[in-house]
Amino acid sequence: MLEPDLLAASPAGLAELGRLVRDIAREAAAGLRRRGGPLPAMSPEELTRLVDEQFPHGVVPRAGAGRDAVLALARACAETTVDLADPRAAAHLQPPSLAVAAAADVLAGIFNASVDTWDSGPYAVEIERRLVKGLCRLAGYGPESGGVLTPGGSASNLQALLIARDAAAAKVRDVRSGGLTGFGLAPLVLCSELAHFSVARACAVLGLGEEAVRTVPVDRRHRMRPEALDAALRGVDPGTRLPVAVVATAGTTDYGSVDPLHEVAAVAREHGVRLHVDAAYGCGALFSDRLRPLLAGIEEADTVTLDLHKTAWQPAAASVLLARDAADFTSSTGLRVAYLNPDDDGEAGYDGLLGLSLQTTRRADALKVAATFLALGTDGVGGMLDACHDLARHAERAVAAHPALVLTAGATLSTVVFRYATRDPAASDAVNGALRRRLLRTGHALVGRTDVAQDDGRRTVHLKLTLLNPQARTTDVDDLLDAVVRAGRAVEEEGTAA
Amino acid sequence: MLEPDLLAASPAGLAELGRLVRDIAREAAAGLRRRGGPLPAMSPEELTRLVDEQFPHGVVPRAGAGRDAVLALARACAETTVDLADPRAAAHLQPPSLAVAAAADVLAGIFNASVDTWDSGPYAVEIERRLVKGLCRLAGYGPESGGVLTPGGSASNLQALLIARDAAAAKVRDVRSGGLTGFGLAPLVLCSELAHFSVARACAVLGLGEEAVRTVPVDRRHRMRPEALDAALRGVDPGTRLPVAVVATAGTTDYGSVDPLHEVAAVAREHGVRLHVDAAYGCGALFSDRLRPLLAGIEEADTVTLDLHKTAWQPAAASVLLARDAADFTSSTGLRVAYLNPDDDGEAGYDGLLGLSLQTTRRADALKVAATFLALGTDGVGGMLDACHDLARHAERAVAAHPALVLTAGATLSTVVFRYATRDPAASDAVNGALRRRLLRTGHALVGRTDVAQDDGRRTVHLKLTLLNPQARTTDVDDLLDAVVRAGRAVEEEGTAA
Repeated sequence: MLEPDLLAASPAGLAELGRLVRDIAREAAAGLRRRGGPLPAMSPEELTRLVDEQFPHGVVPRAGAGRDAVLALARACAETTVDLADPRAAAHLQPPSLAVAAAADVLAGIFNASVDTWDSGPYAVEIERRLVKGLCRLAGYGPESGGVLTPGGSASNLQALLIARDAAAAKVRDVRSGGLTGFGLAPLVLCSELAHFSVARACAVLGLGEEAVRTVPVDRRHRMRPEALDAALRGVDPGTRLPVAVVATAGTTDYGSVDPLHEVAAVAREHGVRLHVDAAYGCGALFSDRLRPLLAGIEEADTVTLDLHKTAWQPAAASVLLARDAADFTSSTGLRVAYLNPDDDGEAGYDGLLGLSLQTTRRADALKVAATFLALGTDGVGGMLDACHDLARHAERAVAAHPALVLTAGATLSTVVFRYATRDPAASDAVNGALRRRLLRTGHALVGRTDVAQDDGRRTVHLKLTLLNPQARTTDVDDLLDAVVRAGRAVEEEGTAA
Repeated sequence: MLEPDLLAASPAGLAELGRLVRDIAREAAAGLRRRGGPLPAMSPEELTRLVDEQFPHGVVPRAGAGRDAVLALARACAETTVDLADPRAAAHLQPPSLAVAAAADVLAGIFNASVDTWDSGPYAVEIERRLVKGLCRLAGYGPESGGVLTPGGSASNLQALLIARDAAAAKVRDVRSGGLTGFGLAPLVLCSELAHFSVARACAVLGLGEEAVRTVPVDRRHRMRPEALDAALRGVDPGTRLPVAVVATAGTTDYGSVDPLHEVAAVAREHGVRLHVDAAYGCGALFSDRLRPLLAGIEEADTVTLDLHKTAWQPAAASVLLARDAADFTSSTGLRVAYLNPDDDGEAGYDGLLGLSLQTTRRADALKVAATFLALGTDGVGGMLDACHDLARHAERAVAAHPALVLTAGATLSTVVFRYATRDPAASDAVNGALRRRLLRTGHALVGRTDVAQDDGRRTVHLKLTLLNPQARTTDVDDLLDAVVRAGRAVEEEGTAA
């Protein structure tokens, strides 16, 4: 067992790693060739049985079976996991990852550096600092800004609201000695009705209660209405409620719509409330000359979430929380620990990034991201979003022109929302939900879905294309829409249970 | 830019990924050969200048420089990041990673599957479910148990305390409509004085306030005293304070000591308080016949944190939160979202792991872990911990026998705490801190440090070996201790600033 190639960061281990990745890539390519589409052509129950057969004794056996077991895992994974690089995969905000990013990510695994302290990952700490600096510059932030990588957009939003909570609480009492509610003030977080659910969840985690969230109506283009935000803030009774933050969304999950950041920032500033911008989806516009105007005003936000594992085509996780004022981090996560970053070491320059993060050990995710930008440049990444935007505009036109489809919302970033037009309007929800599952089960096509609130408040099921494969062609989009229509007709003929 | 090998999950992309990883591994091996020890032989300022020279325009350039830039990054990383596989690296709880785990981790990057929904990563969802099941079995949990992978031990502890908070609050009111403090009850979390700082930090994040934490004294072997816990719980006034959880530590950061889990569980049960066991460090004992008895009673805990990126030699992140009753997850993170897991999809079997996690998009970290156990077996991983335990026992004896060193605490898992015996006892803290930095600066040796509370409450600086390289030999440990003594003498001769 204790063979010389056991550990990755050794000459023998690196040689074995190179060979094993080559073999894994070969098995994965073989697996890909056996696929017929973005999902395996089977039901969830069938997949469960298949994996049961592969691992009759589970995946935590007492005795190991060597590298052959790894290659079998790789092949099965390639055959039956999701293939986001298939042009008929158009459902998810996590993109097909770049080969360069997935390859460079092995550096994080090989060295297992942790960016929490200097001596657990000195080079990785330097790279993360530079990556954050470069992103701050693109966001329009000044030299006082800062940031940190996090495990995901939900985590970035949580930390942003933690900072906002502690800042709001500092106005009335020291939050570290108790919650806001103990002071008789009910906290308030305002976001559009299309904000990501992680905002409400973060409020629950932070002890603000889910009732802390007040949703602000959107306009016809699915963007927060600044005058409605203003009215909501004017209606706050300062004796009973404490506004903690406004959360604007730059790229809603449902539509890719971007709240008017400059106008929202002006309202937040007038009321003295912090502004967080959730640009998890929209962050790719930072790299695109064409789409950058959508983010005008982002530099006025106190904090910003960027998910580089969305529109920078990184493998997860690669989320970033930026703050206009780096001191924001000190109040909520600043920390000195005897075993990690004692004062005397800090004074001697031996400081890591512990004080910026809710994590302790933290993977060097910055390496793959830096490698990507160094290889492709922001122009290369921005060009990929432009290509997806082109596809989405094509999809918008194609849906609008198709007699069996109804366009719900056109493209802002790379998302188009629509419905299959059922013969019986009352069957629309059931048929649209069932046709999507039918496509899933065949494995041929993967489209998204969501609920859309109607004018009467009723929520109806719609379909969604989230186009994040820059190599897909317009004919792929046409084929996808045809597949939706065929599946819709089949469901109408055979019933929704089929 | 849109070349056929752009995306990883394509035949051309997989071929390029295989080549690129081979070249990265070659550059990394070249970088390793130029090293003289676990850290670069330079100060933090010198490293900053070096990286400035490498990237005069930062790491987020407008124009890309292609794959050569990636290889240059790889070489510099290998030369100047931490080398945890060097036998003179004995400071950190993140281990040198296994070649098999680092290699299999590319599967997560290639496919970028996310385990939050079935159709964003069906195979990965199946593997995580089986991995969790296997770990539950090893922990002694029954069929009702469950678990989830998280980004780290701090995140696992946070989620465990979130579950505990919501369970405690459910006794008095619905926490989702407000905090505990609003009810006039101050929450209370009890842990030993050696519990990880993430416990206090989690309490702050959750709005319980850092004053929620009450530390319980430890015995001479650095283990929580059950009778002191009992006394603390007896002293709680139910009219003003609400006990939320007892947190026991299985493997303290400072000593590797393990609280008496069975006795602590009995006390917690008697008082009707939930028990969380933080086995971030100690989890490796699950795989070792020799060390498993240390964890006796772990099956009585309500929740358990396991950091497989510690004593299962995984690259970060690979933390796991297990719960004796899987229903625990439903109360705090159970969630249905229209665009991810609507009810009708769930009824049709299309369910992912969203409802178990505070994350949304979540990397398939289970793949590398499953690959490791399938290749090495739990026996293989447990044998690695046994080897490290042997090294720690050797270090304990060697320190005790060395005239210039004073043993503070011997080995439970793989940690030994000691001091360099200064000629002037009053200079001990300054000299021990400075000798460690001297070793860091030379790059030759990496030892840990921590503060130790004396009987009079004063905290003094001690050194620490955390031995997690199973390939290190006892002579490596001897060399490391000699290096400590030489550095101590040099500091005493040249002064602590040198």
